[in-house]
Amino acid sequence: MPQISEKGKSMPASPIRKLVPYAEAAKKRGIKVYHLNIGQPDIITPPMALEAVKKYDAKVIEYSHSAGNESYRIGLAKYYNNIGIDINENDMIITTGGSEAITVAMMSCLNEGDEIIIPEPFYTNYNAFALQAGIKVVPIKTTINNNFALPAIAEFEKIITPRTKAIMICNPNNPTGYLYSAAELESLRQIVMKYDLYLFADEVYREFCYDGNTHISCMTLKDIEQNVVLVDSVSKRYSMCGVRIGALISKNRDVIDAALRFAQARLCPPSYGQVAAEAALETPAGYFTDVYNEYIARRNYMVEALNRIEGVYCPKPKGAFYTVVKLPVDDSDKFARWLLEEFEYEKQTVMVAPATGFYASEGMGKNEVRIAYVLKIEDLKNAIICLEHALKAYPGKTAEQ
Amino acid sequence: MPQISEKGKSMPASPIRKLVPYAEAAKKRGIKVYHLNIGQPDIITPPMALEAVKKYDAKVIEYSHSAGNESYRIGLAKYYNNIGIDINENDMIITTGGSEAITVAMMSCLNEGDEIIIPEPFYTNYNAFALQAGIKVVPIKTTINNNFALPAIAEFEKIITPRTKAIMICNPNNPTGYLYSAAELESLRQIVMKYDLYLFADEVYREFCYDGNTHISCMTLKDIEQNVVLVDSVSKRYSMCGVRIGALISKNRDVIDAALRFAQARLCPPSYGQVAAEAALETPAGYFTDVYNEYIARRNYMVEALNRIEGVYCPKPKGAFYTVVKLPVDDSDKFARWLLEEFEYEKQTVMVAPATGFYASEGMGKNEVRIAYVLKIEDLKNAIICLEHALKAYPGKTAEQ
Repeated sequence: MPQISEKGKSMPASPIRKLVPYAEAAKKRGIKVYHLNIGQPDIITPPMALEAVKKYDAKVIEYSHSAGNESYRIGLAKYYNNIGIDINENDMIITTGGSEAITVAMMSCLNEGDEIIIPEPFYTNYNAFALQAGIKVVPIKTTINNNFALPAIAEFEKIITPRTKAIMICNPNNPTGYLYSAAELESLRQIVMKYDLYLFADEVYREFCYDGNTHISCMTLKDIEQNVVLVDSVSKRYSMCGVRIGALISKNRDVIDAALRFAQARLCPPSYGQVAAEAALETPAGYFTDVYNEYIARRNYMVEALNRIEGVYCPKPKGAFYTVVKLPVDDSDKFARWLLEEFEYEKQTVMVAPATGFYASEGMGKNEVRIAYVLKIEDLKNAIICLEHALKAYPGKTAEQ
Repeated sequence: MPQISEKGKSMPASPIRKLVPYAEAAKKRGIKVYHLNIGQPDIITPPMALEAVKKYDAKVIEYSHSAGNESYRIGLAKYYNNIGIDINENDMIITTGGSEAITVAMMSCLNEGDEIIIPEPFYTNYNAFALQAGIKVVPIKTTINNNFALPAIAEFEKIITPRTKAIMICNPNNPTGYLYSAAELESLRQIVMKYDLYLFADEVYREFCYDGNTHISCMTLKDIEQNVVLVDSVSKRYSMCGVRIGALISKNRDVIDAALRFAQARLCPPSYGQVAAEAALETPAGYFTDVYNEYIARRNYMVEALNRIEGVYCPKPKGAFYTVVKLPVDDSDKFARWLLEEFEYEKQTVMVAPATGFYASEGMGKNEVRIAYVLKIEDLKNAIICLEHALKAYPGKTAEQ
């Protein structure tokens, strides 16, 4: 029997996935599990996107253009133009979700063994994509005590080596909800320019910025137009994660040309998803206002309720729909499993994502969890009540924070 | 400005793609171009698949399971069981087209620098997928003079090295239309067993077998169950290339586990596509009979008409909807371009795929083209008339075959 590959062996199974069997077992025991662990919003998909698919009347579902349907790319370019990003339909490749945009960006821009600096905690799957491309992720620490602000330029310079080829940020951030300031992006711009690095910007949560803060896209940073690769997705913007439509965007013609060759090999992005995504471009402003109001209410409730619990600290995130929370526990992996395996409060419990999975550095995040506020307030309330009781009952509770 | 990667630089642009601008220019000059170059069938998608998508009434298009919807996997397992392939819903990962199944299979099973033997000519994108995974494709020659039959075991043994980890076949074959016999598959089985190799079987054209020949799946070969990885897709079976739904199938639990971790990183296959593919499982037998009759008529017409042209040799393919044809030309790339750039017959011309793009060995296929008989007979007739006139007029015509 032949062996599987080293990559196959070392592909990480996410800490959240490891918990799934325990959540399923809890449900079988009749326990209601509040899923604070997932990034699947409960917000409805814009009805016009759903309608467009129902009305799509092709008799043959053919391959589309490898870069995506031209009509969709033209429409998408207008969307970007309207938010101040100066690109056209030829500066982009429509991808199968943001995931494919990241793998293609990595393979197009970095050689095997090259290094990419990513502020940690970061989206777990960045690791998986880098592993696939044979690229080394070099984490740079951000901490909850500093609300996950970007480290100073000097900290970046300490870890830049001749193999450093890119910096990647997620803005607003998954898992922290952190929104980068103009000053932080200016620092990034300077490092990128000084060392001629690529800047991969995952901006899929662009629409989710709160408290009057505006999102600054890396695509608008001056003099590094040839360095920036924007990674985007319609999954969160229009709550249609299952359509698998994203985009890789750059003003760098060589990058787009290389990305197109990767795109041609896999033939095309999904046709139905492109129909939904193109129709979603016409989503009225009211949809986003409703979504915004809903998330603001959830976040405000969540942050306040969490900070009222003894020993808990939750920064107030300015974007996305996640927050990383410090808990008075010995080990967030153990705690998350214990919540599902051993704990219940009035036949209810909570599933959280241990933050360890979002750190590349060993030992980090052991007293932190990521919470996604993608549930209705009523459910969030019950979830917080559970969590509060759980923290009192948990045998691995720690006194000191 | 940072450089793109070596992979980005060396990703091949397909010879067909290079011709696209010339085809577009010809169309602009008012010339009708018959596309014998593409694998996009004109056959309608089963109406029940289209209807299922129209009726799909989810309000949120959510992520599906990373391995694909369980209901689809259960239905798909039944489809395989009905054709004598003994698998269940846990032996498979639903992928984004057959393309993703191949890349995931390569990354899960082979290390960088490992070798995979593939009979040439072969589907061009195998090269691209291997390049992405850092795998070396070692071609083994099959020739039009032998109707592209599988080489003898001794030929395989000449090129097997300690780095050889897999053999890949496409059966029925793109680009040749060749259908492997029981004896050939037995030879493959023996090599695979002797050297404990993986056998990747791309069987996406399984339903397209002619003249009473039946398809033998590599999944049914005895004693190599742990070695076989089946790559499949609904694109051709149901003429729905754009839904991007394929599958990676294996009885080898380690392979499926590794593939699942790759699948989890990219989250899930497209939701709408899965809805269409699941509904298509109920496609009535009559659909396939109609498709079969149509392709048989096209093939018979095509092969006979081509062989009537002086200096042309076309084997009679037993499967798929392609054939590789020997033409009396000096250089099939030049000829294909000349057809679009300089030739016309009654305001019509033909686009063919130079066979050079299907060979890994330099210099092979220079007097061969792949022809896809995916057009209506009426169009095929006109295309052949054009081709016949073109071969008379082409300045690089060769006398000797």
